[in-house]
Amino acid sequence: MRNVLAIGAHPDDIELGCGATLLAHTAAGDRVTMLVLTGGEQGPGTANRHTEQRSAAATLGASLRWGGLVDCTLTPDAATVKLIESFIEESQADLVYVHAPDDSHQDHRAAAAAALSAGRRLSRVLHYQSPSTLSFNPTVFVDITAHLTGKLVALKAHASQVELSAMVEPDAVVASARHWGAQARIGYAEAFAPTRMVLDLAPAPGRRTRPRSSAGRHDSEAVAALLPR
Amino acid sequence: MRNVLAIGAHPDDIELGCGATLLAHTAAGDRVTMLVLTGGEQGPGTANRHTEQRSAAATLGASLRWGGLVDCTLTPDAATVKLIESFIEESQADLVYVHAPDDSHQDHRAAAAAALSAGRRLSRVLHYQSPSTLSFNPTVFVDITAHLTGKLVALKAHASQVELSAMVEPDAVVASARHWGAQARIGYAEAFAPTRMVLDLAPAPGRRTRPRSSAGRHDSEAVAALLPR
Amino acid sequence: MRNVLAIGAHPDDIELGCGATLLAHTAAGDRVTMLVLTGGEQGPGTANRHTEQRSAAATLGASLRWGGLVDCTLTPDAATVKLIESFIEESQADLVYVHAPDDSHQDHRAAAAAALSAGRRLSRVLHYQSPSTLSFNPTVFVDITAHLTGKLVALKAHASQVELSAMVEPDAVVASARHWGAQARIGYAEAFAPTRMVLDLAPAPGRRTRPRSSAGRHDSEAVAALLPR
Amino acid sequence: MRNVLAIGAHPDDIELGCGATLLAHTAAGDRVTMLVLTGGEQGPGTANRHTEQRSAAATLGASLRWGGLVDCTLTPDAATVKLIESFIEESQADLVYVHAPDDSHQDHRAAAAAALSAGRRLSRVLHYQSPSTLSFNPTVFVDITAHLTGKLVALKAHASQVELSAMVEPDAVVASARHWGAQARIGYAEAFAPTRMVLDLAPAPGRRTRPRSSAGRHDSEAVAALLPR
Amino acid sequence: MRNVLAIGAHPDDIELGCGATLLAHTAAGDRVTMLVLTGGEQGPGTANRHTEQRSAAATLGASLRWGGLVDCTLTPDAATVKLIESFIEESQADLVYVHAPDDSHQDHRAAAAAALSAGRRLSRVLHYQSPSTLSFNPTVFVDITAHLTGKLVALKAHASQVELSAMVEPDAVVASARHWGAQARIGYAEAFAPTRMVLDLAPAPGRRTRPRSSAGRHDSEAVAALLPR
Amino acid sequence: MRNVLAIGAHPDDIELGCGATLLAHTAAGDRVTMLVLTGGEQGPGTANRHTEQRSAAATLGASLRWGGLVDCTLTPDAATVKLIESFIEESQADLVYVHAPDDSHQDHRAAAAAALSAGRRLSRVLHYQSPSTLSFNPTVFVDITAHLTGKLVALKAHASQVELSAMVEPDAVVASARHWGAQARIGYAEAFAPTRMVLDLAPAPGRRTRPRSSAGRHDSEAVAALLPR
Repeated sequence: MRNVLAIGAHPDDIELGCGATLLAHTAAGDRVTMLVLTGGEQGPGTANRHTEQRSAAATLGASLRWGGLVDCTLTPDAATVKLIESFIEESQADLVYVHAPDDSHQDHRAAAAAALSAGRRLSRVLHYQSPSTLSFNPTVFVDITAHLTGKLVALKAHASQVELSAMVEPDAVVASARHWGAQARIGYAEAFAPTRMVLDLAPAPGRRTRPRSSAGRHDSEAVAALLPR
Repeated sequence: MRNVLAIGAHPDDIELGCGATLLAHTAAGDRVTMLVLTGGEQGPGTANRHTEQRSAAATLGASLRWGGLVDCTLTPDAATVKLIESFIEESQADLVYVHAPDDSHQDHRAAAAAALSAGRRLSRVLHYQSPSTLSFNPTVFVDITAHLTGKLVALKAHASQVELSAMVEPDAVVASARHWGAQARIGYAEAFAPTRMVLDLAPAPGRRTRPRSSAGRHDSEAVAALLPR
Repeated sequence: MRNVLAIGAHPDDIELGCGATLLAHTAAGDRVTMLVLTGGEQGPGTANRHTEQRSAAATLGASLRWGGLVDCTLTPDAATVKLIESFIEESQADLVYVHAPDDSHQDHRAAAAAALSAGRRLSRVLHYQSPSTLSFNPTVFVDITAHLTGKLVALKAHASQVELSAMVEPDAVVASARHWGAQARIGYAEAFAPTRMVLDLAPAPGRRTRPRSSAGRHDSEAVAALLPR
Repeated sequence: MRNVLAIGAHPDDIELGCGATLLAHTAAGDRVTMLVLTGGEQGPGTANRHTEQRSAAATLGASLRWGGLVDCTLTPDAATVKLIESFIEESQADLVYVHAPDDSHQDHRAAAAAALSAGRRLSRVLHYQSPSTLSFNPTVFVDITAHLTGKLVALKAHASQVELSAMVEPDAVVASARHWGAQARIGYAEAFAPTRMVLDLAPAPGRRTRPRSSAGRHDSEAVAALLPR
Repeated sequence: MRNVLAIGAHPDDIELGCGATLLAHTAAGDRVTMLVLTGGEQGPGTANRHTEQRSAAATLGASLRWGGLVDCTLTPDAATVKLIESFIEESQADLVYVHAPDDSHQDHRAAAAAALSAGRRLSRVLHYQSPSTLSFNPTVFVDITAHLTGKLVALKAHASQVELSAMVEPDAVVASARHWGAQARIGYAEAFAPTRMVLDLAPAPGRRTRPRSSAGRHDSEAVAALLPR
Repeated sequence: MRNVLAIGAHPDDIELGCGATLLAHTAAGDRVTMLVLTGGEQGPGTANRHTEQRSAAATLGASLRWGGLVDCTLTPDAATVKLIESFIEESQADLVYVHAPDDSHQDHRAAAAAALSAGRRLSRVLHYQSPSTLSFNPTVFVDITAHLTGKLVALKAHASQVELSAMVEPDAVVASARHWGAQARIGYAEAFAPTRMVLDLAPAPGRRTRPRSSAGRHDSEAVAALLPR
């Protein structure tokens, strides 16, 4: 079982970027937390975006946390880094999803940079695409054929944005899923650019995370014995 | 259980690039096949490199196949592509490891290009690093802390090359494993650059690979119902 | 009026990559030539692919030329370069469309490389995406909202491939058009990566292509007079 | 006719980056607006830089707008984004020129980032090179052979900088124009790296910018009829 | 003799990134200055990091300067740029070493950006790797086989960090040195990504830095005489 | 003193790419060898290109070697690699200059690839730009202000190409030198993209190239003693 933390700058960012993947995680028994850094109060419409976001998180089977920061003012400073660190710790996340770093929205860039700082000790950080993302070269994909409708349901919960924001276009979401699916040689996919992604091939026996521990030193001797003199 | 196919141009290429990862696959119960495209007859020394390679494959718990091509003459032409296709089919591989495309050895470049052609319908193609690899930006890693000594044992089987080839330096192999391990925030790692890598979060229910099948059409209707009008 | 030359390795490559853009060119009064380098005789099916290709070219309002080379054996050698040069000259092309250079099909790579050689003196060379293209970062787009159905009609002419090739998926073609359209902030788009693209802002008065001509020298004096001493 | 908006952080930035291209736009009958974000008050010299800039804009046939921000303090925050948005709206720009994002001057980076944010719905954003630009891989060019002297005249209007700034070297401006011209296979060129550039091949009949409009739905049916079942 | 300025955000950054290279500079008779921008007061432990840093600088034979900025709050603003400019001037640096720009630590990114600004007129700016650096493609290397132990001695002076910081792992430092050494085809290396690096092949006779000086104009005539008419 | 080997596919390639740098090497007392792989017999004109090349080499103070291969048919196969290896050995080169790998001329691509293979054990391989080079991001520069006229003199020796080849434009050569000079913050420069470049800061005492020698093992003990337990 994995502890997954998905981070977005505004309500609906996570759903757009990796909503179906989160559904696949919940279906696999993983524990999923969504961290929405701001209330999205600068977005169009007068709807209660907290309510929309709570409803969307529920459809994804995810816990919801709020960062309490202010829309359009995110910066990747020490306070934001510390804030995200606290949620990484709380969720015991070993896999983080966050915006791609090269994005034309300043909040998205800041969220990506701060998450990379906060997650500097994690072995799995994957970046998702937003409609405002600029360069994006995904190489890691998740098959979402079974979860595409679930993603659209979650997105629909953000009715105010679907209705009013020119950047939220559900038909483009479906098209991109098929586009990336073709790239991944499957049906529909969400696409990710990894900063780093350690694969789990199997529960490794006796894995140690710091090689200079006493166990590590034994290895050193075995290794040295195998090197040519 | 996965069917894994590791492809190398010469005896010892696969061990250097992903030997420990193959051990992790066997440990996880995956079926591993090694395809060595040439006999490495241009390498230094007079040892029987087929014997060395057989011995190395045995230590990795892998099946060994030979491509029967001639060292230093590999080209990514239709014949080489077809040859690799036949081994992908025979092994029913769903995950391929092969050289990185940007490599100063012409055989490595050719092996990478031909494998990309032959594996054009596969969802998982990962590139490993060789001592002659040029640009290499890995983002996917496998924890090999438990398998580093196993990798060195496999490498030792290629005694002629360890002894004579200036490009095979076991101490550099260990150093690189630790270098990439630090990048991956673990102990020791092998590093991979993915052409594409579909993650398995869980056995997806009712996965289909071609969305235009009859099952796919049902989805289309569900999807259409969820799009704004 | 432009003279446009679209180059593809096999029948259907051009339609998949830039079929709607060619329709936009014909609609704009440009003269469009399609150069299909091989007969695609290794593709699936027994249909007459020359007939299919002729029919597709007709729906696009384009002249059709055949390179007469053999499917799956293309190389970017001097003969292929000369062949393409002859068609650039015949068509007086000032804009060339061709495969993207990084593609897993050896013929596509060869077609791109040879076209770059043959077009080394041209100011406009744009690369289109194929289903087998690997890295692709398009920055130039053509709005094909009005020509998407036309593209599908042209594609349909290649019935044997649509029916039998796993790489030709019309629904993915539509999805990609919408995906790139969203990237380009329009409806549907074909996407291109330029090697170089000189824009036409206006018919420049007295344009010269070689600045060292006599006209160029006058400029030199005017320029020198404007430089600080 | 196009509405062109050129954005620069300081007086003389626009002239250095795309002055001749703006002349080509005016010559083509396009409407050109220059937005200079700061007064350049930290530059060398005591000259009135507003006067110099007004004079330069006049030689280019462009309208001049001032952002009123402070030299060396630009940040790509919400206020700067809104400011640029207002000028995009005022000028009804459909083509924006702005600094390249990777630049060693903090104001240039900020201007590029804020313009990308403000122009997130535009289909044409091109980045020009400054003397302080770092990585820059232009693929789009404009032939400025006929406008090189005009560019130098505009630059000369910034006499204080030409005289005193080590980064403003007219002879290097001419050399770069010839360098990029050779890259573009023409005489002299200004070079651009596009974030996205939708080409105009012809006035597309019935173009729509949002495909989910009623017109878009008709298309959907036509498209569906052309897809294989 | 060179004047070398190495810039780091925190105590120990410079030693980790280029400590052995600085030793090679001192050994070669170059004058080395280390500029540590903050006191590293947010790092783990209660040790006096100023004392540790002074001791480390002494082992490297380098002068030590402090930027006096606050740990975790660096920004590449005008004040930081001016601060670094003053140290470039004081040290008369013609070669600057600084963090790589793409780093997950906000202070490292800020130090790199500000140094690039401050060093905009310098011909030699090289970026070193930190444990938190993200993408890094070094092409320039220094042979540190003779200085590896010296680097470890300098690192040991930062006892509080070696003891307590999870990012400071001396065995990984050694491994990376061997990894990059193998890339550089030598024993052990420190690796650098250059923003720009002018090589010294020989003391050039009569070198001028501004070609439009009177000496430059003579050249112009000689050059013009050699161009075809 | 260095042994420098400059490799070009055709007569005039080396002069265009790094002629002035070779002059700087000779001026510094280095030994310079030029290896011209083909006779350039497909170039325009009827002049004796061997004679022209001999004359050009003389003006650069360089030894001239011929590869004896056929113009427009270069491939980076084992024979070409071996050929270049023999010249690396003969010249005892420790620094190689060769074409950039991404070039639209097939011979240039082949020369770069074969030289990278042949020079796989060298620590210094720099790529120069040709008029047909495609992507090129130089980071290493040589100040050629004192050698620009010398470069033009060498180029003039290739009178047939200057006269007849559309790709050889001396005024563009001068412009590019000034363009790269501005990038390098000097007067005029030749620009290089390094595959790898080990800097010489000083004659390192007791340098060893293979760390597993007996000398290397002593180091290992010293290093181990400095690592935390």
